[in-house]
Amino acid sequence: MISFMNDYSEGAHPHILELMLKSNLEQNTGYGEDAHSDRAKLYIKKELQREDVDIHFIPGGTQTNLLVISSFLRPHQCVIAADTGHVNVHETGAIEATGHKVVTVPHKDGKLTPAGIVVVLESHSGEHMVQPKMVYLSDTTELGSIYTKAELTAIRELCNKMNLLLFLDGARLGSALTCSSNDLTLKDIAELVDVFYIGGTKNGALLGEALVICKEELKEDFRFMIKQRGAMMAKGFVIGLQFEALFENGLYYELGAHANSMAERLANVWRDQGFSFYAPVCSNQLFVILPNDMIDRMAKEFGFLVLDKVDEKHSVIRLVTSWATTQGNIDQLIEYVEGL
Amino acid sequence: MISFMNDYSEGAHPHILELMLKSNLEQNTGYGEDAHSDRAKLYIKKELQREDVDIHFIPGGTQTNLLVISSFLRPHQCVIAADTGHVNVHETGAIEATGHKVVTVPHKDGKLTPAGIVVVLESHSGEHMVQPKMVYLSDTTELGSIYTKAELTAIRELCNKMNLLLFLDGARLGSALTCSSNDLTLKDIAELVDVFYIGGTKNGALLGEALVICKEELKEDFRFMIKQRGAMMAKGFVIGLQFEALFENGLYYELGAHANSMAERLANVWRDQGFSFYAPVCSNQLFVILPNDMIDRMAKEFGFLVLDKVDEKHSVIRLVTSWATTQGNIDQLIEYVEGL
Amino acid sequence: MISFMNDYSEGAHPHILELMLKSNLEQNTGYGEDAHSDRAKLYIKKELQREDVDIHFIPGGTQTNLLVISSFLRPHQCVIAADTGHVNVHETGAIEATGHKVVTVPHKDGKLTPAGIVVVLESHSGEHMVQPKMVYLSDTTELGSIYTKAELTAIRELCNKMNLLLFLDGARLGSALTCSSNDLTLKDIAELVDVFYIGGTKNGALLGEALVICKEELKEDFRFMIKQRGAMMAKGFVIGLQFEALFENGLYYELGAHANSMAERLANVWRDQGFSFYAPVCSNQLFVILPNDMIDRMAKEFGFLVLDKVDEKHSVIRLVTSWATTQGNIDQLIEYVEGL
Amino acid sequence: MISFMNDYSEGAHPHILELMLKSNLEQNTGYGEDAHSDRAKLYIKKELQREDVDIHFIPGGTQTNLLVISSFLRPHQCVIAADTGHVNVHETGAIEATGHKVVTVPHKDGKLTPAGIVVVLESHSGEHMVQPKMVYLSDTTELGSIYTKAELTAIRELCNKMNLLLFLDGARLGSALTCSSNDLTLKDIAELVDVFYIGGTKNGALLGEALVICKEELKEDFRFMIKQRGAMMAKGFVIGLQFEALFENGLYYELGAHANSMAERLANVWRDQGFSFYAPVCSNQLFVILPNDMIDRMAKEFGFLVLDKVDEKHSVIRLVTSWATTQGNIDQLIEYVEGL
Repeated sequence: MISFMNDYSEGAHPHILELMLKSNLEQNTGYGEDAHSDRAKLYIKKELQREDVDIHFIPGGTQTNLLVISSFLRPHQCVIAADTGHVNVHETGAIEATGHKVVTVPHKDGKLTPAGIVVVLESHSGEHMVQPKMVYLSDTTELGSIYTKAELTAIRELCNKMNLLLFLDGARLGSALTCSSNDLTLKDIAELVDVFYIGGTKNGALLGEALVICKEELKEDFRFMIKQRGAMMAKGFVIGLQFEALFENGLYYELGAHANSMAERLANVWRDQGFSFYAPVCSNQLFVILPNDMIDRMAKEFGFLVLDKVDEKHSVIRLVTSWATTQGNIDQLIEYVEGL
Repeated sequence: MISFMNDYSEGAHPHILELMLKSNLEQNTGYGEDAHSDRAKLYIKKELQREDVDIHFIPGGTQTNLLVISSFLRPHQCVIAADTGHVNVHETGAIEATGHKVVTVPHKDGKLTPAGIVVVLESHSGEHMVQPKMVYLSDTTELGSIYTKAELTAIRELCNKMNLLLFLDGARLGSALTCSSNDLTLKDIAELVDVFYIGGTKNGALLGEALVICKEELKEDFRFMIKQRGAMMAKGFVIGLQFEALFENGLYYELGAHANSMAERLANVWRDQGFSFYAPVCSNQLFVILPNDMIDRMAKEFGFLVLDKVDEKHSVIRLVTSWATTQGNIDQLIEYVEGL
Repeated sequence: MISFMNDYSEGAHPHILELMLKSNLEQNTGYGEDAHSDRAKLYIKKELQREDVDIHFIPGGTQTNLLVISSFLRPHQCVIAADTGHVNVHETGAIEATGHKVVTVPHKDGKLTPAGIVVVLESHSGEHMVQPKMVYLSDTTELGSIYTKAELTAIRELCNKMNLLLFLDGARLGSALTCSSNDLTLKDIAELVDVFYIGGTKNGALLGEALVICKEELKEDFRFMIKQRGAMMAKGFVIGLQFEALFENGLYYELGAHANSMAERLANVWRDQGFSFYAPVCSNQLFVILPNDMIDRMAKEFGFLVLDKVDEKHSVIRLVTSWATTQGNIDQLIEYVEGL
Repeated sequence: MISFMNDYSEGAHPHILELMLKSNLEQNTGYGEDAHSDRAKLYIKKELQREDVDIHFIPGGTQTNLLVISSFLRPHQCVIAADTGHVNVHETGAIEATGHKVVTVPHKDGKLTPAGIVVVLESHSGEHMVQPKMVYLSDTTELGSIYTKAELTAIRELCNKMNLLLFLDGARLGSALTCSSNDLTLKDIAELVDVFYIGGTKNGALLGEALVICKEELKEDFRFMIKQRGAMMAKGFVIGLQFEALFENGLYYELGAHANSMAERLANVWRDQGFSFYAPVCSNQLFVILPNDMIDRMAKEFGFLVLDKVDEKHSVIRLVTSWATTQGNIDQLIEYVEGL
């Protein structure tokens, strides 16, 4: 059975494995202070066209989210997220477990807007309520949508005005940055947000996220936090070398672009067949509305997620493509759909 | 420069990499619910000669420690550890960050004793103090020593009598189980403790610890905890397949035994040269007392940790061997020492 | 200026102060283990017509809420509350600061319903989300409404079926139990919920809430939690004797009834003048919708809270009566309103 | 039976009760923003001879300790305390429950020394260990001893040099400041430490501690923390007015001095009888070494704490005097002792 369940079903892109094999018997310094991690940081800084950021490699996304939020907020402060936000829904209360409330705003195609953030700010006044201090958003969002440069800039300006920190979860940033409708670069993002991460796990790595701290005041002692939350790997070089491979020659973008193009081909087929989408088609996640009986039949041959009911007879399914999705897999699904 | 700094300088044992490469393009279920993880659990249960344990694969040791302690204690309960214990000294307050006090006992060669535990129990009475509820120990200890079956049994009996949970940190269990003086098996350990883990990171894996929950009452909902602490990897199969490789044909023991035998050769040389040890020679860590000037010279050619001053003119250094330590490396160090 | 701002503007009811004065130089055991606290517990148990509850006196409401929730939930579990719930909105993230998420349901007149709770249960499945385990409600609610016996019973039945704990915040239980429309007794409540508290601060005491733990499994070691959260007062008898005075001869009910009757008189006047209410009139809190200019004028002579805008020209104000509200104060406000 | 168990057995000093009665029916603003609290702050600032401090009234000592430590430390930072320190031993892990480790130093008569603090600093290096950031001490200490101005100054200088915050727990500051050997004033303390509190509970109040934040950078948003930890009392004026009474005309010092003089009389009797002390006689706590059989007999007529065994035949008892200890009570004990 071919799975479109997610973008983390397979191992690592072969280029990554090659580097891993080649360097396997080298003796590295532990805890991320090795030469591979250093080179990876160098390559990423080159993309950002600046030196004055701190980069840390963290094993996974939930861990990165909880690290960022718990390290940069004081105890009485909260983070603002879309109600669909990963930190709100899908992390088993990881943020609250570090002591912080997630205050939510109804999403727009999975996205936050300045107007939504303002509603939270206006309803939080005084010491009997948590103090909003950070905005959390993800690019791509949980619904596969992306932020435009104008949208992200508007949120940045609100953050400046209201003294809020801006954190971008880039678990699927590879796909976001290579969308046809994207107008943001890594450099833009580093200029617009205070802290963000470049997701590896969902874009060809075995594991790992590259956290980039842009704001000077947030940098101090961050490695203590990493250690305290159990996110400092003894063999940190295992993550470092993967980002080295991903950023040495643009592999990161190639993998995102591949996933997107696979998704686009799929989207066209659904569209041609007259099906509609629950969320705008954009990146490597498709949310297709299908009749339930068709979903049942399709589930016997392909793996995917049934997200939600739409009405009595229809539901939304999520199909995800990845760096590892082959033309052959896509062709099989297309053939199946066209044969319906 | 050849490093004896630690046992996590190199990547993974070639057998592990082979399996990783071979299965790289398989589509696996996420979050540790894949076939590799299942097989790895099966192999480990076979070693334990029992089915009724829950096994979870966790990326790292500090994370495993904080997960176990925070999941199994109620808010007012504390864990008892040797003052040298990893959870007390070297985890940046990871345990306290989950809300629990670590109460310490002076160690004996890095080990806890029933008598030491009793001192804690007797000095903690009533609701103005934390309530001791768990005993934490590691095998091998921070000083490379190991617990005998008699010692571990004595602690178990005290735990039974005083209604304490017993947790064994096995970050270096591969080395412990293959020490010449060891009389414990994995099966014994699973019978004697309530929860323990089998360390992969320090015994040939890229990352990963296999947590074994033996006590029925502790099993419920543990995957929620793993997710909440950010320890549930999307590509959980990356850890699962490493333990599959380690336990399919006894590789885990081979690697531990190799590290120990390398350490033993080294120890003999130091002994022959008349140097003494800060801690009993046993597993893959050697604690040698050397003149400071010799340490300075040696540091130019070999990597190792200078642990502590002994007197004005002497210090203790730590030398660690691993699955990856070669005869050649050992020979070079021996030659150097004999040439002094 | 006469204040209808809240029910905690004045000190304590004179009967309480009398007992305080009379016993001032007695030597009491510390930390709530004194004879006054014992007698107060006895009186309360008499009201509950049962012996098998644990009663603890806690200084304040937020503290009681955070103690209950953090003591009875495991780390991955959350509490369900109305979106207007005190624990959700007005405690500066006190619950999250202990590690637990508050999951909310849109309120109905400030109340939770079984249907609302079911929505939460159905949307929380599996280990990537928090696990709903406790229902929090307050009687009276934040909008001054009360639960009927039928309503509370329905929620209890759902809790039984779904294995949820039921916690009733009774900060204003004095007013709730003496509402004209109330059909619950303290005894009923103790039978229907797992844990609740009888509010003193807002019903004539200087400070203090009487927490009643009804469910056997929740009782163990609770005093450790009280101490750990800083809620164990050295002079615990100061709270104990206040509940002694409140429950020796039914003073608690008298004070609640007085506050309610004062509110009812006020409500009639507003009603007669043709004003409408934002929430059903019931207990000692009135939520009146008034023209903004009238609010501005009234604010020069009386203290009250302006809660929220209703439209461009109208807002809701909250008027609260208490055990200490005098006929004279009410008459002055009535006169003012009738004179408009 | 006459109790010398502690200094919180009785209610409040009559002057406090008078003010409470007199103002009982006033309508006060809630949450500590009332006129009584304002006046109390004014009086305290007068003692400190400065305006630029923030003062908050907190119900109890453990709560104040946990508030200060959790509000001013970042997640990876720890507090240094004497091993006998209240935060280390007698608060059921309250500090750890907020996420912070307490690192201890062997005490000298209950006190910390710069040398002891330096040992902690030297043994904590790098991100694998907690980062020492605050020094916690109490005056009087758990053993009734006090800090001299020279001692406190020396610790301050170390804190300046090492960038540490200095926090003084003054639960028994009334007794400390009025010891015959004391050379510190409230003004000195406010100059030497970053934050401290003036204990009310153990010096004549029903409850309450006056927290003084001296360091500008620590002041921001502290009321949010108070609310979050459940320490913001609806009737905050109940604490405010007690400090008003204590500081309007020097009552605070009178009560401390009275307790000390009662203790001194007692000490002389023990001394005359040839008994020795476990800790230097100084403030309102006496630690007398007595034969066990004498302790047993005495326990039938007087209340006190048996602290610890000294040898097979002797133990230390603790006798505490207070503002409420009468000449009569002392005479009875003296008579008893002299009659032995």
